[in-house]
Amino acid sequence: MIVETRVVQFDSLTLDSGIVLTPVDVAYETYGELNPRKTNAILVVHAFTGDSHAAGIHEESGKPGWWDNMIGPGKAFDTNQYFVICTNVLGGCRGTTGPSSIDPASGKPYAMNFPMITISDMVRLQKRLVEHLGIQRLLAVAGGSMGGMQVLEWAVRYPDAVAAAFPIATTARHSAQQIAFNEVGRQAIMADPDWNGGDYYGTKPPARGLSVARMVGHITYMSDESMKEKFGRRFRNREASAFTFDDEFEVESYLRYRGSQFVDRFDANSYLYITKAMDIFDLAQGFHSLPQALEQAKARFLVISFTSDWLYPSYQSLEMVSALRSRGGDVAYCELSSNYGHDAFLVEVGEQTELIRGFLKRVYKEAA
Amino acid sequence: MIVETRVVQFDSLTLDSGIVLTPVDVAYETYGELNPRKTNAILVVHAFTGDSHAAGIHEESGKPGWWDNMIGPGKAFDTNQYFVICTNVLGGCRGTTGPSSIDPASGKPYAMNFPMITISDMVRLQKRLVEHLGIQRLLAVAGGSMGGMQVLEWAVRYPDAVAAAFPIATTARHSAQQIAFNEVGRQAIMADPDWNGGDYYGTKPPARGLSVARMVGHITYMSDESMKEKFGRRFRNREASAFTFDDEFEVESYLRYRGSQFVDRFDANSYLYITKAMDIFDLAQGFHSLPQALEQAKARFLVISFTSDWLYPSYQSLEMVSALRSRGGDVAYCELSSNYGHDAFLVEVGEQTELIRGFLKRVYKEAA
Repeated sequence: MIVETRVVQFDSLTLDSGIVLTPVDVAYETYGELNPRKTNAILVVHAFTGDSHAAGIHEESGKPGWWDNMIGPGKAFDTNQYFVICTNVLGGCRGTTGPSSIDPASGKPYAMNFPMITISDMVRLQKRLVEHLGIQRLLAVAGGSMGGMQVLEWAVRYPDAVAAAFPIATTARHSAQQIAFNEVGRQAIMADPDWNGGDYYGTKPPARGLSVARMVGHITYMSDESMKEKFGRRFRNREASAFTFDDEFEVESYLRYRGSQFVDRFDANSYLYITKAMDIFDLAQGFHSLPQALEQAKARFLVISFTSDWLYPSYQSLEMVSALRSRGGDVAYCELSSNYGHDAFLVEVGEQTELIRGFLKRVYKEAA
Repeated sequence: MIVETRVVQFDSLTLDSGIVLTPVDVAYETYGELNPRKTNAILVVHAFTGDSHAAGIHEESGKPGWWDNMIGPGKAFDTNQYFVICTNVLGGCRGTTGPSSIDPASGKPYAMNFPMITISDMVRLQKRLVEHLGIQRLLAVAGGSMGGMQVLEWAVRYPDAVAAAFPIATTARHSAQQIAFNEVGRQAIMADPDWNGGDYYGTKPPARGLSVARMVGHITYMSDESMKEKFGRRFRNREASAFTFDDEFEVESYLRYRGSQFVDRFDANSYLYITKAMDIFDLAQGFHSLPQALEQAKARFLVISFTSDWLYPSYQSLEMVSALRSRGGDVAYCELSSNYGHDAFLVEVGEQTELIRGFLKRVYKEAA
């Protein structure tokens, strides 16, 4: 399945802040065919550093999508039956308008003049794309981590446009610890002199700071157990009998490698804006409580969390599930057993496939 | 209790690496009185960023010691009965020789020419001080976190010199995750251009990098629960109705404050050397197994861990306890209930006091 990324431009988008962004590009990919009644569309929303390339092999990069193990013919999101859409989020750096985009007012990249964005702004833009594609109601919205926050936002803000919602390994709001880890990443970037107040386009990006930020992220995406299995205490380069300062554990070189790799594909200012959007996200904001917020939703929910995910622990999923149930919401909850930590939503395909396939089948039949 | 820090100099110390360090200063404090038979001495060993000021009010700074709630008249380590010693570790920056000390060969600070040090080197130097004070056998060695590693090393390397060992909130070796967090701190420091290959003495220290490193540390010292209780999602400075990029959560400003504070009292190169010493520490090294290593010890052990400590989780304490028991070692183990995470060993005084007081009383009676 060779796929291409397309970009659509909208004249403007009004943000939560009241600021109007003009124009706005949205990068997106689609997989499968939209049926004539347009009832088989599924929106897949990506996590923090993801992009619109969710499935198939990209025609340019030759790389598989980030959820290719879940989207395709015969897979959980079966493209023989469903039409799957994925967009790069607002504020991103992979084709959708973000801090690295040209500000028409100045003719230069926005950098830190980019307006504050929210999860709700991201979803508002996705809604525009979905309407642009002629779709009134999505069969499902699905995503993990920050993707899950967007799923929740979709279900609450556009209750008539979502038949099924799959928030995976996510939360209705960040805890102090989650905010703290994001803040360390932001500080690492801003501590790098090359960040230069965000004004580094065309010169040297803050590669060292961004790399450190990514290293912290990677630790939180794995579990103690999965790091033990993958690296243990193995040294990469130890030869002498006495230790030297250069003796390097495999886990150290792995993290450094992943950190430096990240710099090539991600914009530091996008890192700042998107993590901030995650941190200020609170589904209950504007409502009296989380149950009241979730009461707006009309979708059937399938909530999934993973036992070893300590970044988005199961208690946060349970909080949503309880809130939904307290208002008579239609919700199934599964805590899947996994050693992979937060990364599990990307790699634990087996059980997720069964759950999602069955759930979609039922919702599609009811909607038909 | 007004206390002063003293420094003793030894001509040389041979390190595990074979390198001979000349001369070596050791900063230390003592509390209480050594009895005539010299059988009431307790060595308290500090965690990563601690120093020799463990108790009382320092005559210069006016500050209480880091374990002042545990050491003093009538406290867990009762200075009416016991003579308590605390030293700054080798490689440190609070009076004991470390990377910021003058290298006699060059007349300049060692910086990254400082030799690699190990937990065993730290303990060897402590042994020298203890002998210098005329003490052949310590009633107890006690410490948490990296202090606990030193306790283990003491018990195994100098079995006849330790009657009781209290390794608290610690491990016999770091996991991949623990190494990973330390490596992030090291990379944050080395990414700061002001680090300058370690050669920053007399100029600007790598304050931004060291501050980021400390922020990561602080997150790992607290628990998800204690961060929730202390900060929640409270904003520090939010006024406008719409979010701006400068809206700051309390947890963010707290971490930044703690990070910047740390720079004033800690040396970045010491951060590198000491974290590396922790990471390469493996009590079983040179033995066939952990049980074989711990079989060398003759001390009675009291092992303590805390339920919410995810940095040094209880399973690591249980590993030591099992190893000791498998070889008929004398070991009591308590997992104390606490929300404070790894910090618990510094703040959960109540139960620790009861446990340690009772244990010391018994050991002191037997030794008398």
